[in-house]
Amino acid sequence: MSADRPTPRRTPTGAAVLRPELTESIAEAVLDELAEHGYGRLSMDAVARRAGVGKSALYRRWPSKQDMVVDVVSRLSVPLADVPDTGSLRDDLLATLRAVLDWLDHPRFRSVLPDLLAEAVRTPALADALAKHVGEPRRLRGAALLDRGVARGDVRADLDREVVLDLIAAPLYWRLRGRHVPVTPDYLENLADALVSMVSAAPPGASREGDGAS
Amino acid sequence: MSADRPTPRRTPTGAAVLRPELTESIAEAVLDELAEHGYGRLSMDAVARRAGVGKSALYRRWPSKQDMVVDVVSRLSVPLADVPDTGSLRDDLLATLRAVLDWLDHPRFRSVLPDLLAEAVRTPALADALAKHVGEPRRLRGAALLDRGVARGDVRADLDREVVLDLIAAPLYWRLRGRHVPVTPDYLENLADALVSMVSAAPPGASREGDGAS
Repeated sequence: MSADRPTPRRTPTGAAVLRPELTESIAEAVLDELAEHGYGRLSMDAVARRAGVGKSALYRRWPSKQDMVVDVVSRLSVPLADVPDTGSLRDDLLATLRAVLDWLDHPRFRSVLPDLLAEAVRTPALADALAKHVGEPRRLRGAALLDRGVARGDVRADLDREVVLDLIAAPLYWRLRGRHVPVTPDYLENLADALVSMVSAAPPGASREGDGAS
Repeated sequence: MSADRPTPRRTPTGAAVLRPELTESIAEAVLDELAEHGYGRLSMDAVARRAGVGKSALYRRWPSKQDMVVDVVSRLSVPLADVPDTGSLRDDLLATLRAVLDWLDHPRFRSVLPDLLAEAVRTPALADALAKHVGEPRRLRGAALLDRGVARGDVRADLDREVVLDLIAAPLYWRLRGRHVPVTPDYLENLADALVSMVSAAPPGASREGDGAS
């Protein structure tokens, strides 16, 4: 798992050892500052003050605000994408959907992702860093779910995986942070059913039966 | 179509007539200010200056910044959701997906929606107004597409429409404004195919064939 986290670009100077519990306190301060003020107005000073450390403790860990924020968001986000192999396509999908919901509704994270994504429209380097350290590691876990289904014979091998993987996280994000309507347990069940009927291995041609014109 | 637009809450005083071409110029100024500065930093003064009008021209039209922004975004967004009835489920879906793409990639609008949605996490009144004047009128058009399919016998009548309608706009928003990766013509075709296989009327039970555990 740690291979998915951003590699610090600056090696700690000399023999300095980074205390993990201090990194954890700083990470909590970063998330709280992000939630309260957003990425644009977040300052290294405020994070240091909130964590009760000097700014040097921050710069020993991350060379810049962007690296700090992306690493902290990655440390929160990537482990939340780990779901067990249940042996069933529908149960794997449902577990993954619940994990996405836990991520998006994480109390420290609710407003953080929309802020970061809005900022990323204007800041391509931030968009790239979020994709590399948050999006891609999370997506690998979704791809593994599909691989297991193909291996079991449950999942069509000819799927456009870009489409299917988008359809797992996208509706929950759109609903919670775009439309601002709740995701109920029934909704998750019905979404899992819809995804199962989309990806299930079925006799060729059967899935487009109703469509006469294309 | 005009029934979907927000009704101005303040009636023009006296015999004042609101010139439509002036409303149009102000709307362009609002979008340009939103794109440059975001919702939080948008001021009525800056909009008036940019449009070359007095602030009274704004307040004659909208009682507040929020009403102004939501109305302007509604006027841009709702007409872009109108797609013709092609008579085919797949072609209707594809036309709708292209219309969503045109909306999200509209040059004046690219960064506007992510900003507004980030702000809406903190401002429930803004979230409600966007839902009422942008989300719901657009969604009615998607629902009409499904109604036509059910009437033709192409679309399963037992669908959870909340799920299906989310799956039309959500993947494009997630891809463009969440993951920051392009939507190619192939992607749109494959997404249309995936949605067709999800919603198509098919023999009962056929769609869950591969799923032994649920």
